[in-house]
Amino acid sequence: MPNLVSKLSSNHERFLADLFPGDDCMLTEACRYVHGMDASRLRGEVLAVTRPRTREQVEELLRFAQRERIALYPRARATGTVGGSVPSVPGIAVSLLGLNRILDIDERDFAAVVEPGVVTAELQREAAGKNLLYPPDPASSGFSTVGGNVSTCAGGLRAVKYGVTRDYLLGLEAVLPGGSVVRFGGRSHKDVVGLDLGRLFCGSQGKLGIVTELTMKLVPRPEATASVLAGFGDLRSAMDGAASVFRAGILPCACEFMDRATLAAIRLGDSLPLPDAAQAALLLQVDGSHACVQSELATLEQALGESGPLEIVSGTGDAETAIWDVRRRISPSSFNLRPDKMGEDIAVPRSRVPEAVEAAHRIGSRLNLPIMCFGHLGDGNIHVNIMYNASWPEEADAASAAKREVFGLALDLGGTISGEHGTGLTKRDHVDDQLGEVERGLMHEIKAAFDPHGIMNPGKGW
Amino acid sequence: MPNLVSKLSSNHERFLADLFPGDDCMLTEACRYVHGMDASRLRGEVLAVTRPRTREQVEELLRFAQRERIALYPRARATGTVGGSVPSVPGIAVSLLGLNRILDIDERDFAAVVEPGVVTAELQREAAGKNLLYPPDPASSGFSTVGGNVSTCAGGLRAVKYGVTRDYLLGLEAVLPGGSVVRFGGRSHKDVVGLDLGRLFCGSQGKLGIVTELTMKLVPRPEATASVLAGFGDLRSAMDGAASVFRAGILPCACEFMDRATLAAIRLGDSLPLPDAAQAALLLQVDGSHACVQSELATLEQALGESGPLEIVSGTGDAETAIWDVRRRISPSSFNLRPDKMGEDIAVPRSRVPEAVEAAHRIGSRLNLPIMCFGHLGDGNIHVNIMYNASWPEEADAASAAKREVFGLALDLGGTISGEHGTGLTKRDHVDDQLGEVERGLMHEIKAAFDPHGIMNPGKGW
Repeated sequence: MPNLVSKLSSNHERFLADLFPGDDCMLTEACRYVHGMDASRLRGEVLAVTRPRTREQVEELLRFAQRERIALYPRARATGTVGGSVPSVPGIAVSLLGLNRILDIDERDFAAVVEPGVVTAELQREAAGKNLLYPPDPASSGFSTVGGNVSTCAGGLRAVKYGVTRDYLLGLEAVLPGGSVVRFGGRSHKDVVGLDLGRLFCGSQGKLGIVTELTMKLVPRPEATASVLAGFGDLRSAMDGAASVFRAGILPCACEFMDRATLAAIRLGDSLPLPDAAQAALLLQVDGSHACVQSELATLEQALGESGPLEIVSGTGDAETAIWDVRRRISPSSFNLRPDKMGEDIAVPRSRVPEAVEAAHRIGSRLNLPIMCFGHLGDGNIHVNIMYNASWPEEADAASAAKREVFGLALDLGGTISGEHGTGLTKRDHVDDQLGEVERGLMHEIKAAFDPHGIMNPGKGW
Repeated sequence: MPNLVSKLSSNHERFLADLFPGDDCMLTEACRYVHGMDASRLRGEVLAVTRPRTREQVEELLRFAQRERIALYPRARATGTVGGSVPSVPGIAVSLLGLNRILDIDERDFAAVVEPGVVTAELQREAAGKNLLYPPDPASSGFSTVGGNVSTCAGGLRAVKYGVTRDYLLGLEAVLPGGSVVRFGGRSHKDVVGLDLGRLFCGSQGKLGIVTELTMKLVPRPEATASVLAGFGDLRSAMDGAASVFRAGILPCACEFMDRATLAAIRLGDSLPLPDAAQAALLLQVDGSHACVQSELATLEQALGESGPLEIVSGTGDAETAIWDVRRRISPSSFNLRPDKMGEDIAVPRSRVPEAVEAAHRIGSRLNLPIMCFGHLGDGNIHVNIMYNASWPEEADAASAAKREVFGLALDLGGTISGEHGTGLTKRDHVDDQLGEVERGLMHEIKAAFDPHGIMNPGKGW
């Protein structure tokens, strides 16, 4: 870890209060406390909270922080689940919620220009008003930001058809430690001049600089959608059903699965539109013109039928919303099993999903913990929720052991320890299991080209 | 330029002949001559040609070349049009055509593992045999390679719907100068652990290392396609027609345009299925299930109808092939206008395409040169063919002036001097007009992290 300041001097505080007038500089303990956490519930030490409203303020801040060797932790809505914005060593939290303007949505360029603090759902809504779609749709889209989505390269429900946040990043403006401003890409949908450093920011966990403007690609908004919920007697049949759908030439815009433990967790608090014998389920969505959607829905039902589903519920409009309510109930329902959760997001080659889920179940049985597997079957991205009671030391230890085993499992199957959350604090000690020494060495050198003194979000695994 | 060897010693030649047995090491003048050129018709000095067949040979070669400070120029089918693989200073040409195996096409993982020398059309064909689609489809796909496509981040006809080569790169193995082997990504469709250095190779023009294995994403193969050729009285009407298509919620898998000069060039040698009054044309393709394609075709024809087309020719099967023959005739037809060509590939924000084309025409009129504009309207990527006679010094000078003006125009409109070809030798002197000093400094530092002695494909603009 580089040699960074662990306390702010009164001069430092005065500088920050001058640069960020009013409550855009927060030094009280209460403010610092809440800005030291994210959805991982981990907490680190925040020395001051700043909320820039202009790029010029960000430039000043990054000149100051580099000169004074103060760690910076960019953050927005702090919906990350891995402690990605939580300090590893004391530093300044930089809230990007003051940079929250949609600067342009252009229906001829199929591009949106936004500041990083714009909530993703707001961009989606504004784009929809111009008959455009911003496809990346992480489960957090209602409350996470475009800048946060870029920092993690967020995936989400529609990634199987539309790809991830990276695939929609056309250009960005960022300020680097020391205060210089860089711009990569722009509104052109294609650009191959120079190294592709703009997209390197995607998934970089805010470790290269602070993004101040993003240009994102939009696509025409499909006229219609339709969805299917299908229950199966076992996981293998569900997986076979999904394979049949793809074999039929259909690329659904969402292809989610839920395992037996996930269905059990939902059933503990709620009813499901599936028979009790259903021990696995698929949730699929197709989109396109009305005629396309009708035809694909029929093909999809037929394809699923080959794998002996116990029930198929299809719907559009309100019925479709009801189907997706099942998906939304997963996270709150998980706490029907235990009060605490390690929510991992491994990804494996798609054919290995059944093996991965079955192995995760065996780990749960052996360690006597409920392990729920669900998520983005279409791209092999499995949410593995290890449920436990943190106040029982034995369960807490077992949960940590389970997490290690789940990561090992993902790597053994040719996968990754993180498909969309990033490594943050919760996985930083496991990064070396996945990345080789030469690869990590390159990452460090490249990080140093952007941030020679290591002030940007240190201690996150690479 | 770094201090690189300009002649091989007899020890060097002996080393290469030992490492690459038989005709995998070529030292004759004839062999060196042909391996010093690409489709740009530029030529540089090749000291030796090597054709590795194993990764181990590549490792040895990169250890040797770094130690001896010899420039390396990776190449495959040399279909690049900007001199991307042509030596700027003397060096060894490394033909990747010996690494040409398709190692796996997995219809459950939706992934293909290939060596870099596999011809793109071969991958497409093998994938189609398993009912899968490899979407990137540069016009050169019949004879360019997947490795070459990665080095330029090739786009092509289907990019408007499916994206570019980068969007299909899941993982790669490469050997760096010095001989170390790196692996990034894999068969998982998502992976956010560490910096995204695998995709940094995409569009890097072979300047970071030599790729020895690629894992590419595949998608379900659509059941059907249909295409439309529509002729309009002027360019603006054609552009309005394309805008109507997108407004109707259709994302065509190809959306090409041809301007008046392009149609004129084709008409000089051939007939066109469009009335003579047609001075601009659109070529669109939709894909999906049979029912979708029928419905989208109808919507598309209706949307185009709003802009007063002079003729609409639609087709599937053989009729569709005939429609796309028009597109394929552009390049050979261009020489009906003049014997020589500067084929540029600027990209601009999509709404600026009409302005860009009109301005290019004005440049042509003023300099008295035929300038054809055509290409990928859907992503604002315009092929600007400046036709001239190289043996007339006045026209050669005018062509160079036109090229400079076209680049300036692209940048003035918020675009780029290259949408898919890269900068190579032909645009290296213009890179500084597009990229800022800080951005270029970062690129140099990052390049140096991979290639500290600058042996990989030097002299290509950044």
